[in-house]
Amino acid sequence: MKNVTSPQKGNEKLLEQLTNMRRELHEHPELSMMEIETTKRIRRWLEEGEIDILPFENLEVGVIAEIKGTKPGPTIAIRADIDALPIKEETNLPFSSKVDGVMHACGHDFHTASIIGTALLLKEKRDQLQGTVRFIFQPAEEIASGAKKVIEAGALEGVEAIFGMHNKPDLPVGTVGVREGALMASVDRFEIDVIGVGGHAGIPNSSIDSIVTASSIVTSLQSVVSRNVSSLQNAVVSICTIHGGSSWNVLPDKVKLEGTARTFQDDARAKIPEFMQRTVEGVAAGYGAKAEFRWYPYLPSVQNDARFAEVAKEAAIELGYEAVEAEKSPGGEDFAVYQTKIPGFFVWMGTNGTQEWHHPAFTLEEGALEVASSYFANLALKVLETWK
Amino acid sequence: MKNVTSPQKGNEKLLEQLTNMRRELHEHPELSMMEIETTKRIRRWLEEGEIDILPFENLEVGVIAEIKGTKPGPTIAIRADIDALPIKEETNLPFSSKVDGVMHACGHDFHTASIIGTALLLKEKRDQLQGTVRFIFQPAEEIASGAKKVIEAGALEGVEAIFGMHNKPDLPVGTVGVREGALMASVDRFEIDVIGVGGHAGIPNSSIDSIVTASSIVTSLQSVVSRNVSSLQNAVVSICTIHGGSSWNVLPDKVKLEGTARTFQDDARAKIPEFMQRTVEGVAAGYGAKAEFRWYPYLPSVQNDARFAEVAKEAAIELGYEAVEAEKSPGGEDFAVYQTKIPGFFVWMGTNGTQEWHHPAFTLEEGALEVASSYFANLALKVLETWK
Amino acid sequence: MKNVTSPQKGNEKLLEQLTNMRRELHEHPELSMMEIETTKRIRRWLEEGEIDILPFENLEVGVIAEIKGTKPGPTIAIRADIDALPIKEETNLPFSSKVDGVMHACGHDFHTASIIGTALLLKEKRDQLQGTVRFIFQPAEEIASGAKKVIEAGALEGVEAIFGMHNKPDLPVGTVGVREGALMASVDRFEIDVIGVGGHAGIPNSSIDSIVTASSIVTSLQSVVSRNVSSLQNAVVSICTIHGGSSWNVLPDKVKLEGTARTFQDDARAKIPEFMQRTVEGVAAGYGAKAEFRWYPYLPSVQNDARFAEVAKEAAIELGYEAVEAEKSPGGEDFAVYQTKIPGFFVWMGTNGTQEWHHPAFTLEEGALEVASSYFANLALKVLETWK
Amino acid sequence: MKNVTSPQKGNEKLLEQLTNMRRELHEHPELSMMEIETTKRIRRWLEEGEIDILPFENLEVGVIAEIKGTKPGPTIAIRADIDALPIKEETNLPFSSKVDGVMHACGHDFHTASIIGTALLLKEKRDQLQGTVRFIFQPAEEIASGAKKVIEAGALEGVEAIFGMHNKPDLPVGTVGVREGALMASVDRFEIDVIGVGGHAGIPNSSIDSIVTASSIVTSLQSVVSRNVSSLQNAVVSICTIHGGSSWNVLPDKVKLEGTARTFQDDARAKIPEFMQRTVEGVAAGYGAKAEFRWYPYLPSVQNDARFAEVAKEAAIELGYEAVEAEKSPGGEDFAVYQTKIPGFFVWMGTNGTQEWHHPAFTLEEGALEVASSYFANLALKVLETWK
Repeated sequence: MKNVTSPQKGNEKLLEQLTNMRRELHEHPELSMMEIETTKRIRRWLEEGEIDILPFENLEVGVIAEIKGTKPGPTIAIRADIDALPIKEETNLPFSSKVDGVMHACGHDFHTASIIGTALLLKEKRDQLQGTVRFIFQPAEEIASGAKKVIEAGALEGVEAIFGMHNKPDLPVGTVGVREGALMASVDRFEIDVIGVGGHAGIPNSSIDSIVTASSIVTSLQSVVSRNVSSLQNAVVSICTIHGGSSWNVLPDKVKLEGTARTFQDDARAKIPEFMQRTVEGVAAGYGAKAEFRWYPYLPSVQNDARFAEVAKEAAIELGYEAVEAEKSPGGEDFAVYQTKIPGFFVWMGTNGTQEWHHPAFTLEEGALEVASSYFANLALKVLETWK
Repeated sequence: MKNVTSPQKGNEKLLEQLTNMRRELHEHPELSMMEIETTKRIRRWLEEGEIDILPFENLEVGVIAEIKGTKPGPTIAIRADIDALPIKEETNLPFSSKVDGVMHACGHDFHTASIIGTALLLKEKRDQLQGTVRFIFQPAEEIASGAKKVIEAGALEGVEAIFGMHNKPDLPVGTVGVREGALMASVDRFEIDVIGVGGHAGIPNSSIDSIVTASSIVTSLQSVVSRNVSSLQNAVVSICTIHGGSSWNVLPDKVKLEGTARTFQDDARAKIPEFMQRTVEGVAAGYGAKAEFRWYPYLPSVQNDARFAEVAKEAAIELGYEAVEAEKSPGGEDFAVYQTKIPGFFVWMGTNGTQEWHHPAFTLEEGALEVASSYFANLALKVLETWK
Repeated sequence: MKNVTSPQKGNEKLLEQLTNMRRELHEHPELSMMEIETTKRIRRWLEEGEIDILPFENLEVGVIAEIKGTKPGPTIAIRADIDALPIKEETNLPFSSKVDGVMHACGHDFHTASIIGTALLLKEKRDQLQGTVRFIFQPAEEIASGAKKVIEAGALEGVEAIFGMHNKPDLPVGTVGVREGALMASVDRFEIDVIGVGGHAGIPNSSIDSIVTASSIVTSLQSVVSRNVSSLQNAVVSICTIHGGSSWNVLPDKVKLEGTARTFQDDARAKIPEFMQRTVEGVAAGYGAKAEFRWYPYLPSVQNDARFAEVAKEAAIELGYEAVEAEKSPGGEDFAVYQTKIPGFFVWMGTNGTQEWHHPAFTLEEGALEVASSYFANLALKVLETWK
Repeated sequence: MKNVTSPQKGNEKLLEQLTNMRRELHEHPELSMMEIETTKRIRRWLEEGEIDILPFENLEVGVIAEIKGTKPGPTIAIRADIDALPIKEETNLPFSSKVDGVMHACGHDFHTASIIGTALLLKEKRDQLQGTVRFIFQPAEEIASGAKKVIEAGALEGVEAIFGMHNKPDLPVGTVGVREGALMASVDRFEIDVIGVGGHAGIPNSSIDSIVTASSIVTSLQSVVSRNVSSLQNAVVSICTIHGGSSWNVLPDKVKLEGTARTFQDDARAKIPEFMQRTVEGVAAGYGAKAEFRWYPYLPSVQNDARFAEVAKEAAIELGYEAVEAEKSPGGEDFAVYQTKIPGFFVWMGTNGTQEWHHPAFTLEEGALEVASSYFANLALKVLETWK
């Protein structure tokens, strides 16, 4: 795939403006729920653009703004996430993070600046806008709690559809990845405590071996994916931590395990914890041990509403960009939380990055700022124009 | 170890006589509970020796005989087992089995001839005998039911102690292996049915996979020995058959397993089926399957009574034979069934064989006939002499 | 879904004709490569319809026929499979199988009659036909060798695309299931020999336990699907037979396993045997055993060519039938073998059956004969009309 | 078992003296290799008893003393270990530990005082002593390095046999536990590193799962005891720590395991690490992972020399104590290190304690001081008297 040169000549000024914003954000990353300076910057830039900011007092961080078109119509939202990660930057960029151990390693600086760009563009086109566009600059995506906060603050009220994106390092600039239906996985967390009886390592018959029991549980849990969930669905069960014992000659009484399950299908998501609990408790009983299985629902899957699939492609093609069929991703996104309330559509925005998300040397090409800002402006116009 | 030359000169005639008997038995082996001609031969030889045969009508096969000493005293028994095995002989001996597929591959022909020799020797020494010696020529040892039949027939009534032997190919002729306490293992049998739900091999989520469940059970059952039974005890749990499925593309609904457990300790023997049942049922439940565990007690362990340990050694040493500390054996012996009723002592008799028991080329050195017959005659005399 | 009444009034005569054919075939089912009378019947019916039969001497069973349109154009093929199954019929239909233990339990009688119907319909519309339609009445689909035979006989030469169907009991009559890309799974077979050292069940340390090793291999193989293949792909690895041991007290030297792997993705299909072999050999080595893994490629997956996705839907809709998005199936089809040579498209034909394929009480609604025959006639006309 | 009242009337003074010593040691416990004040105390008490202390400059802690009999003969040694444990005492005894977190919770204070008592008794009986008795007050038994240090210092030179004891809470005072051959287990330590490839928990196919691999290794290692080591031997393989991963949604690249193996048989001890290494490396390879197995020999088993079995019993019986057959213990003792150089014999000394070794409320009955001191004095006299 070749990178597309932006067809919107004359917007070099906008690109420069958004690039400056993005770099300023990049230099001053803030962790989830601590986006205080970021919030101030977004407010300042929106105010400079004379864009209305809506007051939501319960939102300590994050910004809600709105542009009303001159023509009547429904309200739709465009969401950008604004938080950074506890990662030490290693990009050697001149505008590298000035905060030690914190970095915009997932490109939310890019999302934020792009959607400010969209607001600036739509501000110019208010007379074509057949309805209202709300801009949600959301905090705390990385800890999966920001969308919930926005909804609790009431900022989704009156909104009839929501749109969003994530940058995608392996797509070229000028390419938008679009997929109807499941795009990103549901993400849930679980904990397992395996409780045996500790004791003298030389007298295992006086103990119940929690390490052997836990190991057998891990082995048996492979069958949840290999046998219990349909192969036509997509499920992952990963045990990511296992900890037990503190001395080489004492059998521990307990092993703790933690992990995550992912899937794209609601019924699979509902059944996985049932299969896991059955396996964990049965195998533990087989060894005379006890086991506690705890399931913490975390994020549903991003499910793109079919009615926006075509317009999401056309909004790109119309501007001379490329629209490609998006691959599903086993990662999670709290954009999915909005979709449990209203229909939504989430796309990949090509940024031709050199590294995967969350990498200390994560980068992106800033030309994508212009693509993203113009894409979402066009998408908003077209969605409202074709609203039924 | 060097083989000992029998010190009992003058018994060359006896050795020749016993050798002829043993070869006649060897040529005409009979399977368990089918020892009809063997029974006739034993009766004939005992009658020729003018030894009293006791009538036990319930014993269709096998012979009970008795020699009363001239002095009063208790009754003790010496037992020889008489049955052969469904094995095709490959020894090329001139007196090889004439019955196709049946062979004295465990040396019970040797046991029988030796104890007839003991009877002939004791007949000569009745005036030294301070009590009574009963000779039990027992059928059906190989199927672990002969001792039970002998007891049910009443042939153990009035007997206060019982003695017996098994030939041992890895001991030289002239050597007797003696061990106080556990000598041979308890032998029990078990069956496990793992019941899942069969179905289309491409749709495992519509089945409960009985093969994966059974495999996990087998793996988990290793912990019965490795973790549940004390390492100071001796336990074996062997799964010996596993069968499930008949087509490469259909998941079977059932897998069947069979096996055996061995140990030398009564408490271990009692606990092993409990541990196994817990494991089998728990792990099956973990996979959503069912499992049925069935335990069939088969044979207790041979436990030699401490009060005869010294005399069992001295009876050998006195005759110029060697008495060695016997190794425990994980094999079983239905002599153990008598020991559940009365005290007993079982020894290894060195036969310098070339092959292990049950081998198609199993042989022994016939010089051991004289050692065994004189050893048990001497043992009977000494046991009765020192009876308290 | 409601069943659609065929819009093609006036074809009641055709429906009656096809129903008679189907019932005659149903009464006289023949196993794979033994379709001698079936072949004769098809030839007779085609000859009665004055449809040209092409001579392919290497095809002992099966029929190749052809209709040339009056207008020039490419050659496309329509394939029906004609063989029956070794299943004893339990439908109680008046036209039940007259051959004991053989039954058209997969509906190939329906496929055959329908495509004869298509030929009869197209014969009438030769003047609209912009090219040639070849009819492949293929033997031996059930044993996955018929398509290979047809190709080897040269009957695919000159054909530029191929179309086919399978009846689908869970779709109503009047509904056609259409799916671009993967529709049916690749099906491969594997065998595993686990070779230990047999021996005395009481002395496991003198053996290498093939049952424990095989069980651990089965358990570890679950990770091929749960960990090694991408969750975004669809893989199944089912072990369907496990056999070892013949006596409860002898450890066997060998366990044999058989099974099948399914997937829809070529790269997954290529990697699964590599992952399996690594697992099998590594785990066996861990137990000191040996293992032989053998992989037998059986059938590739049915991959529907994107260029025919639209026409396959429209051909149904145009006739008043319903076109629905087809579910992928983990079953296999040797139609896939044709697709390794030329582009093809395979659809589900709703038959509103009461039982799944291969069930002794499998049935279908005969109204579907008219739907299927008219659908494929229309599809052929449209494909040739729009050929690029 | 009833406790025996010491038959040695007139030794009430000795008992009082030893009780005071033991309590002084108990109040001032010192950890391994830090027994500085303990060393001073022992030296003081021996000097007060006019017992010769041998200079071994390389021994910073610990004391070597000697009593030469008036009659010529060989030199034998009696060993007492003197170190305490890092355990916080919870006995509420008036002479509880004054050192926070350090306690004589294994009764080495008892051993030390008892053997000083033996020296005092033998000092009185020098004219009956047919040789020399060396007293080894050994440091650092708890960390398995003291015996090695004593040997390196040269303090075993010229010694032809060595004797020692451990208190046994479950034997009554007045009872000595004696066993020929294996008494305490060999103790070895192992570490296993399982090295996979870490990564995104949602994309396991891009990782090699170190937790699943480690779990399968733990499960497979059960076969070392259940299948590979003879059931006639006694082996334990315990995995006591398992640690991997630090985040619930990241697959770790490494899992670390630690544990210990115990046995009483040299050939089992030699083979266990071979079986373990084979299992660990094979199973890891099966999962595409790597594993490093490291074996750290720690302590051989205590093997009591048969030639002293009788005298060890008689030395007790002669004084009116009871000699019982000792149970094997799966714990280790660095007394075994001496036995790799010279023959030795180690006994259990009944102390009727309320708790197991290493328990914060561990106690013993002080009457055992007189039993132990007189037993070892008598044993030394008899061993030298009967020396061949």
